[in-house]
Amino acid sequence: MEGKMKTAVMLGIGHMGFEERDIPKVGDNEVLVKLEYVGICGSDLHYYETGAIGDYVVEPPFVLGHEPGGTVVEVGKQVTHLKAGDRVALEPGKTCGHCEFCREGKYNLCPDVVFFATPPVDGVFQEYVAHEADLCYKLPENVSTLEGALIEPLAVGFHAAIQGNAHLGQKAVVMGAGCIGLVSMMALKARGVSEVYVVDIMEKRLQKAMELGAAGVINGAEEDVIERVKEITDNRGMDLVIEAAGTEITTRQAVRIAKKGSDIVLVGYSKSGEITLPMSLILDKELTLKSVFRYRHIYPMAIEAVASGKVNLKGIVTDVFPLDEVQKAMDYSVNNKADIVKAVIQIA
Amino acid sequence: MEGKMKTAVMLGIGHMGFEERDIPKVGDNEVLVKLEYVGICGSDLHYYETGAIGDYVVEPPFVLGHEPGGTVVEVGKQVTHLKAGDRVALEPGKTCGHCEFCREGKYNLCPDVVFFATPPVDGVFQEYVAHEADLCYKLPENVSTLEGALIEPLAVGFHAAIQGNAHLGQKAVVMGAGCIGLVSMMALKARGVSEVYVVDIMEKRLQKAMELGAAGVINGAEEDVIERVKEITDNRGMDLVIEAAGTEITTRQAVRIAKKGSDIVLVGYSKSGEITLPMSLILDKELTLKSVFRYRHIYPMAIEAVASGKVNLKGIVTDVFPLDEVQKAMDYSVNNKADIVKAVIQIA
Amino acid sequence: MEGKMKTAVMLGIGHMGFEERDIPKVGDNEVLVKLEYVGICGSDLHYYETGAIGDYVVEPPFVLGHEPGGTVVEVGKQVTHLKAGDRVALEPGKTCGHCEFCREGKYNLCPDVVFFATPPVDGVFQEYVAHEADLCYKLPENVSTLEGALIEPLAVGFHAAIQGNAHLGQKAVVMGAGCIGLVSMMALKARGVSEVYVVDIMEKRLQKAMELGAAGVINGAEEDVIERVKEITDNRGMDLVIEAAGTEITTRQAVRIAKKGSDIVLVGYSKSGEITLPMSLILDKELTLKSVFRYRHIYPMAIEAVASGKVNLKGIVTDVFPLDEVQKAMDYSVNNKADIVKAVIQIA
Amino acid sequence: MEGKMKTAVMLGIGHMGFEERDIPKVGDNEVLVKLEYVGICGSDLHYYETGAIGDYVVEPPFVLGHEPGGTVVEVGKQVTHLKAGDRVALEPGKTCGHCEFCREGKYNLCPDVVFFATPPVDGVFQEYVAHEADLCYKLPENVSTLEGALIEPLAVGFHAAIQGNAHLGQKAVVMGAGCIGLVSMMALKARGVSEVYVVDIMEKRLQKAMELGAAGVINGAEEDVIERVKEITDNRGMDLVIEAAGTEITTRQAVRIAKKGSDIVLVGYSKSGEITLPMSLILDKELTLKSVFRYRHIYPMAIEAVASGKVNLKGIVTDVFPLDEVQKAMDYSVNNKADIVKAVIQIA
Repeated sequence: MEGKMKTAVMLGIGHMGFEERDIPKVGDNEVLVKLEYVGICGSDLHYYETGAIGDYVVEPPFVLGHEPGGTVVEVGKQVTHLKAGDRVALEPGKTCGHCEFCREGKYNLCPDVVFFATPPVDGVFQEYVAHEADLCYKLPENVSTLEGALIEPLAVGFHAAIQGNAHLGQKAVVMGAGCIGLVSMMALKARGVSEVYVVDIMEKRLQKAMELGAAGVINGAEEDVIERVKEITDNRGMDLVIEAAGTEITTRQAVRIAKKGSDIVLVGYSKSGEITLPMSLILDKELTLKSVFRYRHIYPMAIEAVASGKVNLKGIVTDVFPLDEVQKAMDYSVNNKADIVKAVIQIA
Repeated sequence: MEGKMKTAVMLGIGHMGFEERDIPKVGDNEVLVKLEYVGICGSDLHYYETGAIGDYVVEPPFVLGHEPGGTVVEVGKQVTHLKAGDRVALEPGKTCGHCEFCREGKYNLCPDVVFFATPPVDGVFQEYVAHEADLCYKLPENVSTLEGALIEPLAVGFHAAIQGNAHLGQKAVVMGAGCIGLVSMMALKARGVSEVYVVDIMEKRLQKAMELGAAGVINGAEEDVIERVKEITDNRGMDLVIEAAGTEITTRQAVRIAKKGSDIVLVGYSKSGEITLPMSLILDKELTLKSVFRYRHIYPMAIEAVASGKVNLKGIVTDVFPLDEVQKAMDYSVNNKADIVKAVIQIA
Repeated sequence: MEGKMKTAVMLGIGHMGFEERDIPKVGDNEVLVKLEYVGICGSDLHYYETGAIGDYVVEPPFVLGHEPGGTVVEVGKQVTHLKAGDRVALEPGKTCGHCEFCREGKYNLCPDVVFFATPPVDGVFQEYVAHEADLCYKLPENVSTLEGALIEPLAVGFHAAIQGNAHLGQKAVVMGAGCIGLVSMMALKARGVSEVYVVDIMEKRLQKAMELGAAGVINGAEEDVIERVKEITDNRGMDLVIEAAGTEITTRQAVRIAKKGSDIVLVGYSKSGEITLPMSLILDKELTLKSVFRYRHIYPMAIEAVASGKVNLKGIVTDVFPLDEVQKAMDYSVNNKADIVKAVIQIA
Repeated sequence: MEGKMKTAVMLGIGHMGFEERDIPKVGDNEVLVKLEYVGICGSDLHYYETGAIGDYVVEPPFVLGHEPGGTVVEVGKQVTHLKAGDRVALEPGKTCGHCEFCREGKYNLCPDVVFFATPPVDGVFQEYVAHEADLCYKLPENVSTLEGALIEPLAVGFHAAIQGNAHLGQKAVVMGAGCIGLVSMMALKARGVSEVYVVDIMEKRLQKAMELGAAGVINGAEEDVIERVKEITDNRGMDLVIEAAGTEITTRQAVRIAKKGSDIVLVGYSKSGEITLPMSLILDKELTLKSVFRYRHIYPMAIEAVASGKVNLKGIVTDVFPLDEVQKAMDYSVNNKADIVKAVIQIA
């Protein structure tokens, strides 16, 4: 397909703009996707606010956005499993296929991954993208492209659930009721965990957690989290803790409320990158700390979970902005973190 | 067996003495063991120096020592697998058998465990002990009771190796060349790991590590540990890291030298109990932190490893003191930590 | 509690009767349970029809029945977690707690297990039973004692699901829609498997499977099972196969319809005990054959699954007989195997 | 490199010959290897004797041989980790890298694998081969190209050991002392298993097993295998059984001698492809049957095991033939199966 497309670009810290770019050419193993929705991730906001995450530094003009859903409009010569008109969720990272991590199935650790909106690789706040067909997953009829866009954060939640071997019969708790905390909670439930509790300090988020299926919530600003968990678990502690808040307070609470011999899954990044842990307690309880970097092998399962009604992905969307209002969307997201669970850019 | 026995008791901080106590009666499922060697553990020294470890406070007179080896002299009515004359290693913890941890096979986490030399339960710096026969493991001909005594620390090393799923084909590193570091190194090798490196800052200990089979050593006081590991592993990082030093420096190094996606096994307790970790790096590398609390299901395997020559347990013994010199043994151990790998009390 | 109770006994092959026996005394760690429902298992029928299963030979008078639910009426001195009035499901096997299997958490393999209705140990077609309190699991308000009785077969289904590591994202199939096949299907779904197909040759059973939540059914007498699975799975094969029919035909089909690298879980016992397998195909596909002997660590999870509505246990009950009609119940069950999914004796 | 090379071809059943072929061109990601040794595998003999294995039918002229070792003489443009002069072992299967099996790290199950000497893909009884550089593993100084050739069968043994989770502390038995049985035995030992017993009916092979490190051997033609295992294991049964004989007798013995709850690893293909198993016994013992199809991720580990002296790979070579005598080599191998453990073609 020939032509031009509108592309939202980050021009500097706190400054968005637009460029007209060529619609990308489709490689033999690629499909061209007309994007419909792209979620705004915390990492997009971080680049927008500070210009960098660790060693990854934005060189403007830079395209943000790595949570896309859309419709295939053209397919490469070698593509057989997709056709124009198919609605798809796009997994944003292309991996090398040859390194030891790729070969062993841990492709999320591939050192040569090319990942949307991770500098210098552009993201997808734009009308079209050409992407490896193997990374585009067809959505069933009852899953919208808005939900398709949100498969990306849901995949993080599922990877956390899998890293923690979440299963029926456990009592679990998720620290943090932001987007990742909530999708983790729903992922745990989809894998069979009946009772998932959620801890946060913002009442609005905790209400959202209840709406989306939490067995109960704990407001850490008002209640003693450790005592409440003792009550809930008859002093046994939680079978599984997902740490999705990324704070020292909640990570230390995680160690205290986890049952002996259990797993804590670390998902949330802390601001400073450093956390002081009660290490002797970790040893005394023989805890395991698993961690999560993106996800692997999750998309089909996550799509199925949405299609079968196990996960209410629409329920996390609090705000939708048209592409033309991307500046407003970013600013609003930065300034209203407490109120937003998930904001999404509607491309078309 | 009737009669009296000599018992070394801790009378106060830094103060050992002796009592004459009754030789214990043998229960139906117990055996009476004439002790020959009891190792001195770091925890014994900690109680001796400070009077407590966390919530466990010594009430004098208190018997230290939980690493015993000896010879069966009497068996309870129900005991069939042992007889007088059998030489045995004694696993020091009696567990309840009923709690969820016992039922699920993680008996080391039993909350009702009765463990030698953990206040208020007396240890075994004494001539005899009556102990559950199921916890007394017969030593083959070619394993001495001195080695039998040291099965206890070796069990910690094996549990660390198993927690880390140590196996042939890995490159591994052990942080710390004290007793637990060295037995961990030998446990890794016994499970098939060909190349185990050892990091410490005391040259003498590193020499010992080389004698006992390390593939190489790194003196952290003289070399850049991270750079050396890069060289050794072609920049890949270690497949497995055992942290047995219990310091913040080495634990942070562990995170940096571990390969992406790999396991770090935490064995060493830190003095303050708190360690500040580079948490974002842990997530970026998707590391798993396993931990070790004592051990479970290890004794038969550890004895076999010694019997088959896979582990040189005698090699870690640096000092042997007669029971009469227990005060000297403790003082010497406290004052010469750098020189001692393992000191042992010879009871008989 | 003193007094007499009615006990149904097997007096010979095909011949039931009654005895008046003493209400059992309660040991210190036991509870006395007034039984309300006891399910009839295929093994009960097998003893009834043939007098033996393998080496286990009935010596009349013998009490059948090992799937009990009831209400606690008296508790032993040491029992703290139950009280009179608690409604309970009874796990039927008492294990030794000391053998290597018990110690490692695989207590279902304990060689010294004492299991209801396994000769020479009597079962529980009777009014009362004294049973280890640790094996009596309190039922929540919304779970009836009828459902409590059926936790036993459900536990087999869950153990099968766990042996096969059933999880969200799989397509699975259960061979056989008898009681165990149906509870396996529901166990898979409770653990998150969205699509579970069921194969049988009796239309009535397949209808039951659909009622209870199967994604689809295949009538092996009318359709080509292998071709149907190819259609369902786009030629990939099933991610998990539970073989609960115990026939050579279905076991061989299991090998053919399983995806490469997947697990088949063997649950159903065949009549002759022997099955001829296409072994080269098993190797070419690198399949794993897991097997199921009773269950372990399942009761709390199974009760929770019923309480949370994940499993419809009442739905498998096709027939309820009062204790007085036990002869009729047994005869009817033997003669109407095709129509019965689960028959239950109502004791009180 | 331009020029011609000698190629041994199978011209028909039992009929070898030679062709002069072009030395292959090197692709960008390939290396050209001058072959020095190629092992003769049982599958080569099967094609030679019968013209087919299952659906794989030889169309002459066809090149047999898939166990090659040699020296790199030319490297493709993109190859950086190898250079001319490097001696290498060649993993014989090129996989697609894109299918679900490749992506999940189970590349041995890739349906599009191109594997040496599996019709219609030619093997390597020839002077040169161009092969994917990623599948050519550099040999350390102390590993010869003869040993390099034999990494291929050793990889099968290691995959069996890994499928069975072989580890220190187990008592294990290998059924069958042919090439695969012996390398399996050595693989178990390299992974730390101290006591590996070997069962066969040919005394010569059992002697070889003893030479290569078996803890003991059982001649199934002269001794009661089941009784002997009871003696060896104090009636407990073996912790791990590797079935490498491929007969119904040994597979049935495997079920009987395996400990309850243990794993049997199926490696040996049976002639008819069908085996009748005592299925009820498998369920009663809750055994797991794992199986082996080729191997994955093994070469570096296997090379290290040889280099470190853990595996004596030269010890399995009983016969070496020059390429010119390939007809004699094949005929001798077919006619002296009892005497040969491993025959190898020396190419240069």
